[in-house]
Formats: sequence, structure tokens, C-alpha cells
Amino acid sequence: MMITLQELQVYRNFDELANDVLDLAKEILPDKLIYLTAFSDGQQIILKLSDENTQILLSEGMVINLEETVCNRVDFERNQPLIFEDIKKEPCLDDLKEILEDVNIESYLGIPISLVSGERFGTLCAAHHEASHFDKKSVDLLQRIARMFSYYLELERLAYRDALTGLYNRQYLFRFFDALSKEGGVLFFLDLDGFKKVNDKYGHDAGDEVLKEVASKLQLFVEGENGAFAARLGGDEFIINFPGIFTKADLIKRAEKLLNSLNNWAAKYPLSASIGIVAYPANGYLALETLLKNADSAMYKAKGAGKNTYAIF
Amino acid sequence: MMITLQELQVYRNFDELANDVLDLAKEILPDKLIYLTAFSDGQQIILKLSDENTQILLSEGMVINLEETVCNRVDFERNQPLIFEDIKKEPCLDDLKEILEDVNIESYLGIPISLVSGERFGTLCAAHHEASHFDKKSVDLLQRIARMFSYYLELERLAYRDALTGLYNRQYLFRFFDALSKEGGVLFFLDLDGFKKVNDKYGHDAGDEVLKEVASKLQLFVEGENGAFAARLGGDEFIINFPGIFTKADLIKRAEKLLNSLNNWAAKYPLSASIGIVAYPANGYLALETLLKNADSAMYKAKGAGKNTYAIF
Repeated sequence: MMITLQELQVYRNFDELANDVLDLAKEILPDKLIYLTAFSDGQQIILKLSDENTQILLSEGMVINLEETVCNRVDFERNQPLIFEDIKKEPCLDDLKEILEDVNIESYLGIPISLVSGERFGTLCAAHHEASHFDKKSVDLLQRIARMFSYYLELERLAYRDALTGLYNRQYLFRFFDALSKEGGVLFFLDLDGFKKVNDKYGHDAGDEVLKEVASKLQLFVEGENGAFAARLGGDEFIINFPGIFTKADLIKRAEKLLNSLNNWAAKYPLSASIGIVAYPANGYLALETLLKNADSAMYKAKGAGKNTYAIF
Repeated sequence: MMITLQELQVYRNFDELANDVLDLAKEILPDKLIYLTAFSDGQQIILKLSDENTQILLSEGMVINLEETVCNRVDFERNQPLIFEDIKKEPCLDDLKEILEDVNIESYLGIPISLVSGERFGTLCAAHHEASHFDKKSVDLLQRIARMFSYYLELERLAYRDALTGLYNRQYLFRFFDALSKEGGVLFFLDLDGFKKVNDKYGHDAGDEVLKEVASKLQLFVEGENGAFAARLGGDEFIINFPGIFTKADLIKRAEKLLNSLNNWAAKYPLSASIGIVAYPANGYLALETLLKNADSAMYKAKGAGKNTYAIF
């Protein structure tokens, strides 16, 4: 899962590390403007610049559509730098040429920054207002700096991820729920049926397999839906949050689809889930704790009704 | 907990990252020998050198007693570099002077590398066979490289740690048990009494508090004992491994001490534990899986005997 910009803001040492990256890169390419960018939702954000008041018209916080940025052409798959030493003379830059001219960039180096999972984070770039040469050694050193930075990002990212399943964790839910719930929405609270038995009878490895498969099913379930996310609360308890306003019929349809999606298992010990559902209004005044408590009691109702079913609070 | 050298060997990208660190540092101080060291059990290990065949007589894999190394004087507490620009002229280096002379180091820069937990990992050093000046900017950049490297180490370290408690995890146990059990020893298998009730009744936060407190008690319990370690298997199951050969009386004494140590709680919902104990011989042929199974069945005997007690397999 991608790092959201929201998430980036609470990373403990992000500013410090971003400065380290820029200062080290600047040491290697002292005459260039160095900058760090992040990709998010089809856009590129300029996070930090090594210098202010250069002839290059980029500024911190600037947002550019990904289709209109040269960084979008960086080869993330093969983790290769992209180099244009004299943009005026590049035959294949077509429409981008104008944009680069507008911001006064005549030579460009872009290094991909990917997460360990392979997802794009953004780029570490060096640019100049004149044509210039990027020697192999400097490019290589900048790649190394970008790699070290990506490990740091991964470390921070882990604070909001459940180590076993890769889903968001409770810290994420509590840290971001207020910001993510402004438009109203609904929480699905899942508790697996008979999980303790798998753990006790077949050991933790078997239990972990079950949890991982549930997690990937839930992740798949939310992926199509804008703004929805799944999180592991702990043990065999999971949350799905769907933003938006739903009718009761919507909720029922969704709950049945979710129960269905848990029916097809690769793991040796397939489990169903009991689901408690609680809706919350836009700009609601219900604290997450209360919502979880209500969802939990609905979930117990579903358990009482024979498991593998749902109940709406 | 410290990173062991054993652990370092299985870190996925350690070699690559160590090379990145040396190459970046070398770029900043091209005329110096750069080297990376780790501290472990009162010794310093030279992990990697930027150059071979220099006039400085250090080599990769070299082990030095910490009392006999200048790196031991680096200020880890305040995270300060240590600089000797002309060792011959240093009045306060006394006995170390001779050692540094022996390896032909006349100027030295040592940067502390600490883990996020504050523990010492080792040092990033630059040395020269002649007196030389270390400018502030270069020292600063080397400190930044060391900091980035420490985040990488932390990331790798996490793979063998339980995220909640900081104890070793199951991966660690299975990865290293063969190497750690050669001299024979005994496994204590702990399962908390009534943990599920705390989780269900008071929520996962309360449950997590209990697990964290158990973990810190177990960590304290093993800290004095050479080679002993505690790990969290998963859920509310913990392992302690004591290397060595024990009489039955030894085991009983230890089990009672362990049960006692779990009696004094800060957490709101104190729990006792049931302990299964299984001894294994030196160079034994029992697989860890078998030992855990036997320890587990002894643990169930302890549960059956009224909990808050132990049973020997």
C-alpha cells in the first residue's frame, strides 16, 4: 500500500531525513538544484528543495499532474535513473519540453524512490537551468542515497502497518480516523469465527496463515472503493471503513458480499467471520472508541445469531 | 536489545548498504580510510573497509577488545563525533596511543552509530596514517550518513523482533535456535492464564499492556544470564531459552523464580502464567518443533494442575 501524504506528515524524522538526503546529494552535485518529490493519486508533490531562489521555478509544496511531469517517465520497474543533459536537443520529449522550459529546467536527472514492496514513492532529482553533464559516479551515489532513504521510509511506514498482514494497524486507525471520517461513513467490525481453535489446535503458523489470507481478502475488497481501507485491530479482529452515506439496503448488500468474499479459501483452515456494522454521519460527534464499542456489540449479536453473519447496530 | 553479529549476517541488504555507506563517506573524505565497525560483547569488529592495502593495519573481520579501541571513547550518549587530528600530540590518549601507533593511525574520526532504542551499534570511522584536518562540514555529512544507516539497521532488526513487545519473535527463534542450542539447554514455554478474558472484556489496549509488561519482566529475567533470551511466539505465548545443562532441582528453582517474577504488576489486569519446561542435550537431535510441542504439552499439564504453576516434560 502506498504511503499517503497525510501519513508522511506524522513520520517522526521525515524533515530531518529529507534534509540529509538533499544535503548529501548537493555535496555530490553542488551546482545543481536538488529536489525530492512524492507521487500520490495521479499527482506529484515537490516535497523539498535544496536551494531557494534559483532560476528554476519550482517551489516546495507545488503540485503537478503526473502526466505533466518528466518524473513520471522515470523507469521504476527497472529502478533506472532518467537523464536529459540537454532538454532542448531531446527529440522525444514533445509536450514535456514546453513545461520544462516554463520552469526553466534545461538539464534533468531523476532517480526513482520505491518502497520495499515495489510501490513508487517519488523521485530524487537534480536539475539545472543550463545544459549540463551528469557523470556516472555522481548518478550512482545519488542512487545510493535514494536507496538509503527508501529504507528509512519503509521503517516509518511500518509504524502504521500490521507486521503480520501488511494491513493498516490500530495506530493508523486512531491516528487518522478523524481526518478520514469527515464525510461520514460506515465501519464493518469483523471477528473470525473459531480462530482461537485453529491457533490452539494447529499452532500459530496455521493461525497466521488464516490471518494473512483474511487480510488479503479484505484488502482486495476495499481496493476498488475510493477512500475505503481495511485495518487489523489486533488478534483476529479487523475493521473496514467505507466513507460515504449508505442506505440500510446498501449495507446489507455490502455485508453479504463481504461474507461471500470470505468463502473461498486457499488456507488449510478456512474460517468465516461475524460482522458488526455501525454507520456514522458526516462531521459526526461520535468518537472512534464509541463507534468501535457499538460495532463490537453488533458483532456479538451476529455471533449470537449463529456466526458467519452480520448485524447492524 | 543489541543486534548480534549472527543476526547481521542474515540481514537482507547489509553488504550492499555497508558499501553504500563507505562509498558515500569516501566521496566526502577521499584521502581517508573509511571503515565500519560493530560492538558486541565487549569487542569491536571491523566489518568493512573502504580500501585494502593502505598503510593502516586494519582488516575486515578483525576483532579488538573494546577497552583497547579508541572507538570505545566515542560519546554515544550525546551522539558526538570523536576527533583526533594529530594523535601524537594528544596528551590524554595514554595507553591507546601505542595501539594506534601499532596500526599506523595518526588521525582519527569516529562517528557513533546507535539504534533507535539508544543502544550502541558501532562506529563509522575515517582514519589516516598522517596527521590531518577533519573539516566541520565533512564530519556533519558523515554523521548524516551514519544516521541514515542506523534507520536501515533498525528496519532489518525489526524482522526479528515482535512489534508490540520488542522481544525476539518466532522468526528469530526458528532462524537461530540450531546455532544457539549447540551446548544444550532448556526451554520454558509460558502461556498466560486468562489472557483472552482481558482482551475480550477490556479491549486490545488492555491486552497489549499485559503483554508488554510480561515481556519486560521476561527480558529482565534473562538479562543477567549469559546467552539466555526471551521470545514471543505469538498471542500470549512466550519462550525463554537458557543455554547449559541443569539438574531437576535447578529447573524447579528457576521456574519458581520465574512465576514469582510475574507476581508484581503495574498493569491493571495482572495475570499469572502456566509454564511447560523441556530440556535438550548438547548437540541434540530434537528439532525445535518437537521441543515446542513437548513444552506445550507440559504447559497444558500445568494448566490442568490449576494454572500459575509449571510442569516438566
